[in-house]
Amino acid sequence: MVDLQAVLDSIYKELTPRIGEGRIADYIPELAKIDPNQFGMAVVTVDGRVYTAGDAAVPFSIQSISKVFMLTLALGKVGEGLWKRVGREPSGSAFNSIVQLEHEHGIPRNPFINAGAIAVTDVVMAGHAPREAIGELLRFVRYLADDESITIDDKVARSETQTGYRNFALASFMRAYKNIDHPVEHVLGVYFHQCALSMSCEQLARAGLFLAARGSNPMTGHSVVSPKRARRINALMLTCGHYDGSGDFAYHVGLPGKSGVGGGIFAVAPGIASIAAWSPGLNKVGNSQLGAVALEMLAARTGWSVFGD
Amino acid sequence: MVDLQAVLDSIYKELTPRIGEGRIADYIPELAKIDPNQFGMAVVTVDGRVYTAGDAAVPFSIQSISKVFMLTLALGKVGEGLWKRVGREPSGSAFNSIVQLEHEHGIPRNPFINAGAIAVTDVVMAGHAPREAIGELLRFVRYLADDESITIDDKVARSETQTGYRNFALASFMRAYKNIDHPVEHVLGVYFHQCALSMSCEQLARAGLFLAARGSNPMTGHSVVSPKRARRINALMLTCGHYDGSGDFAYHVGLPGKSGVGGGIFAVAPGIASIAAWSPGLNKVGNSQLGAVALEMLAARTGWSVFGD
Amino acid sequence: MVDLQAVLDSIYKELTPRIGEGRIADYIPELAKIDPNQFGMAVVTVDGRVYTAGDAAVPFSIQSISKVFMLTLALGKVGEGLWKRVGREPSGSAFNSIVQLEHEHGIPRNPFINAGAIAVTDVVMAGHAPREAIGELLRFVRYLADDESITIDDKVARSETQTGYRNFALASFMRAYKNIDHPVEHVLGVYFHQCALSMSCEQLARAGLFLAARGSNPMTGHSVVSPKRARRINALMLTCGHYDGSGDFAYHVGLPGKSGVGGGIFAVAPGIASIAAWSPGLNKVGNSQLGAVALEMLAARTGWSVFGD
Amino acid sequence: MVDLQAVLDSIYKELTPRIGEGRIADYIPELAKIDPNQFGMAVVTVDGRVYTAGDAAVPFSIQSISKVFMLTLALGKVGEGLWKRVGREPSGSAFNSIVQLEHEHGIPRNPFINAGAIAVTDVVMAGHAPREAIGELLRFVRYLADDESITIDDKVARSETQTGYRNFALASFMRAYKNIDHPVEHVLGVYFHQCALSMSCEQLARAGLFLAARGSNPMTGHSVVSPKRARRINALMLTCGHYDGSGDFAYHVGLPGKSGVGGGIFAVAPGIASIAAWSPGLNKVGNSQLGAVALEMLAARTGWSVFGD
Repeated sequence: MVDLQAVLDSIYKELTPRIGEGRIADYIPELAKIDPNQFGMAVVTVDGRVYTAGDAAVPFSIQSISKVFMLTLALGKVGEGLWKRVGREPSGSAFNSIVQLEHEHGIPRNPFINAGAIAVTDVVMAGHAPREAIGELLRFVRYLADDESITIDDKVARSETQTGYRNFALASFMRAYKNIDHPVEHVLGVYFHQCALSMSCEQLARAGLFLAARGSNPMTGHSVVSPKRARRINALMLTCGHYDGSGDFAYHVGLPGKSGVGGGIFAVAPGIASIAAWSPGLNKVGNSQLGAVALEMLAARTGWSVFGD
Repeated sequence: MVDLQAVLDSIYKELTPRIGEGRIADYIPELAKIDPNQFGMAVVTVDGRVYTAGDAAVPFSIQSISKVFMLTLALGKVGEGLWKRVGREPSGSAFNSIVQLEHEHGIPRNPFINAGAIAVTDVVMAGHAPREAIGELLRFVRYLADDESITIDDKVARSETQTGYRNFALASFMRAYKNIDHPVEHVLGVYFHQCALSMSCEQLARAGLFLAARGSNPMTGHSVVSPKRARRINALMLTCGHYDGSGDFAYHVGLPGKSGVGGGIFAVAPGIASIAAWSPGLNKVGNSQLGAVALEMLAARTGWSVFGD
Repeated sequence: MVDLQAVLDSIYKELTPRIGEGRIADYIPELAKIDPNQFGMAVVTVDGRVYTAGDAAVPFSIQSISKVFMLTLALGKVGEGLWKRVGREPSGSAFNSIVQLEHEHGIPRNPFINAGAIAVTDVVMAGHAPREAIGELLRFVRYLADDESITIDDKVARSETQTGYRNFALASFMRAYKNIDHPVEHVLGVYFHQCALSMSCEQLARAGLFLAARGSNPMTGHSVVSPKRARRINALMLTCGHYDGSGDFAYHVGLPGKSGVGGGIFAVAPGIASIAAWSPGLNKVGNSQLGAVALEMLAARTGWSVFGD
Repeated sequence: MVDLQAVLDSIYKELTPRIGEGRIADYIPELAKIDPNQFGMAVVTVDGRVYTAGDAAVPFSIQSISKVFMLTLALGKVGEGLWKRVGREPSGSAFNSIVQLEHEHGIPRNPFINAGAIAVTDVVMAGHAPREAIGELLRFVRYLADDESITIDDKVARSETQTGYRNFALASFMRAYKNIDHPVEHVLGVYFHQCALSMSCEQLARAGLFLAARGSNPMTGHSVVSPKRARRINALMLTCGHYDGSGDFAYHVGLPGKSGVGGGIFAVAPGIASIAAWSPGLNKVGNSQLGAVALEMLAARTGWSVFGD
């Protein structure tokens, strides 16, 4: 096996001159304030070893990466019945497109575009007040990462609430099609809080380790989902995890993954390791510029691509 | 390792009562004449063993599966420059949609939808008369499969020529955007002939073995593409190989693959084996109904899913 | 000149057996309660004569017909600058389509589709609290019709508020594009109240008489808009007044007009008369079934079509 | 009545400094060669008087204006049954959009967008060889204008044939939906020849006079269509005659009309006169820049707008 620490170190060293590249997401005012000159990586292997480089311990806003955890919760609640509410196909449109939603009568294409994630949130809320649903997600993520220090950044959540008109449009639209059961403000309240989860690369890699390890976290012994469900979530991440850049990410990196506009990318090498990379500057399709490059280098140097070594 | 022959035999036995399920593609008159009661599978492992079940030696019209071979040829000719002519993202629309083509100014989303495959064919034709381009593809496929008996079914090609108005529309449309260099009739002449390649499951699995084996065919010793290119073609098959059912195939089967309306499905277990399944009846999204089920069973019983075992 | 009362009487008589045809709009619960067996017409000529037939004095919910009055108010406030906020082209889509809004970056196609009318309402609200804007519209319509008894039906307004998710989506979406300045709830509060204006055919024909009479109401002597603006509002009604049935209405009736889901249709014979017809049952494209037929008969018998006699 | 010759003279004088404005259509090579510094107008009143200004006797390529004559022919052949093949609603998209055609399953929105005109041409061809259909149209237009000197410019027709890929796409696409009966090359052969009709403003105004005069040409005594059909063709021109600038033309000019990329505009003042204006430079939406301005001035100075004086 490759010396993982050496691989991470070499990637970090090679990319150091490029730290600060890309454009910070500015549509959420609170996120726009972040220092762009940060870059970290963490890898946790299925035998429980942890490797890090750079700012791997700095918490950041995981944003859409939270959709993976919320999807896991929703599948736990309603099982495969979830797919009546949301599809499983790549979207072929920008991440917040409302066009497809109209053509497909209020059923979002997949759980990783905004509309789909909002529908998933609505499913998780069944029988809960908004505050309880937020609490449930936070407890779940802490349990996955085995780390009680993980928090939600209320300022970021409020910042999104104030500007998230497009998400209001998506949710109202789905409610018009009866694909949202709860009041739009409640669903988005929960949604904006889940996006505001604040985690470091290391926490993220630990929390998602179950997806690399047949559904169970080998570091805590917790069984989270069945091996089959872990595979399926990985499949969804590979085909739909990066909005309209999913094909490109599969082509260049070759690992299931999910990105967020906070600059984080979470990825899985099935049977081997979970990975997180973070740098705030985004590339043209809205994924972390350095994060995507770092993951491509990591996959190339380890031979971890799911499409062959 | 599992006893592959036993796995194939058990799948064949379990599916035997369902042979004939699905609907035969009827928009190509010549294809509509086929006997629906056929079903075969073939697996070729990277160490050169061949396993078959059912009608694995019966040639059928591989149709869109030929797009994988044409893409390989085009990448060999123009390398990564190909991506100026065609994208790499899932389409999110039906396989022959012209809508997306207009929105994206004549650049098809990926090489596996019809428009994209037609553009790829146009690339391969550079410097060739149509007849020569067809000859080149036939020689290439025979070389890949190490089998000189593979042919093109002229009746099927002619049958498509007579009814392929939508493909004429797609090609004319791309030519309006200057993304087709050759006369539309010539490009479609080649395109319809490539779709009319007639191969058995076993021939198909042999021909595609290089994609499972780091770009080289271990049975012939031929080096076809680099390991990196093999991975990338696999990535494209996984995200885009089944039109608007790609997400579903990844979710249920978890292998890169490409289907054709003739009822064939080709798939790759990277580093392990290449696979072909065939049965003429199609499911609602236009893939072989039994073929898809058989591949899901195979992946489940072998643990070959790229998303974890 | 034709004997108008005789024309109205003959139309009423011929259509009496068909009263009750069509389907009542049921997506606004309060509207769904109406008795379908009602039908009325009113014509007011530019020399101030009033002709009526059937239920011409029964108030009904004018719904989208109110968009004509709100547009007139908005043009009075900001003049031709309004066209930075909304277009002037027919929509080519269903009346509440959000697709076009996305393709055109939050600028609705015209002031008579819902999105456009919501933007127009937002313009009228500048400097006003919602309650004041509603009051201003009510005063304006009373002034136009010279009738202080016109009211807004609060029950209908509330009924829309509770179910108008799609309008919430449209407004939120435009706010995301910064084409709505006020809080979405406020704008829709005003919008739903304007739609809930309750007027009879006779009141409606009187209120809109200025559009037939070079911008001034000859019965009151009030100058409302310039002759040029009256022509332009008529042009907008002709090209955009009936959602995706505008071309059909022009083809069959040949008069500028605006319909509402309450079953009312307002129309103008420039230089001659203003017209209102009402019957609750709607045809397939959402216009009053009997109202449209009655107007076609009226235009045919009077030779009032703007396209020739 | 206004002194029409004085009106035309004043418009011509005021616009003389602007002759040459706009951009010549360059996608048809033969059209791109024209001298941009030309501008003419002709008005023919229903009592048979002819008024002209500028280059009113210079023949130009009428292009899409020919769609009005072909529509008249088709309605004469199949009557209202034509509307099974083509719609009557404004398109809400660019003149050659294929998107709408897909959404509406091969039925073009109206007879004045390219797809619709191609379908209309296909209808006229029933029972004719292409050459005969072209001959029939030429005879019809000569009969309408009472002028045997009108010709078709073969060079222009050939120029379109060589570059009209998008029209090939539209026709192939409709043929895929079985909405084109004849071979695509034949239909487009006729279509390109009809667009290549070469007429002067005066010839055009004479040929279209029947639309202003209840369906009959008062100068020749020929009855062409019924008064009802004349009104309906006018209605179609008003709602659909200028592609995605139809609403704007109605707003500013207020007359039914049809434009062509050769820089001509034909318009009708029902009951009063037929009008033609021509100048090769086009505005942003593809209509003659000076032609549109001249018609707006004419309508303003004569009070001929159908929406009021």
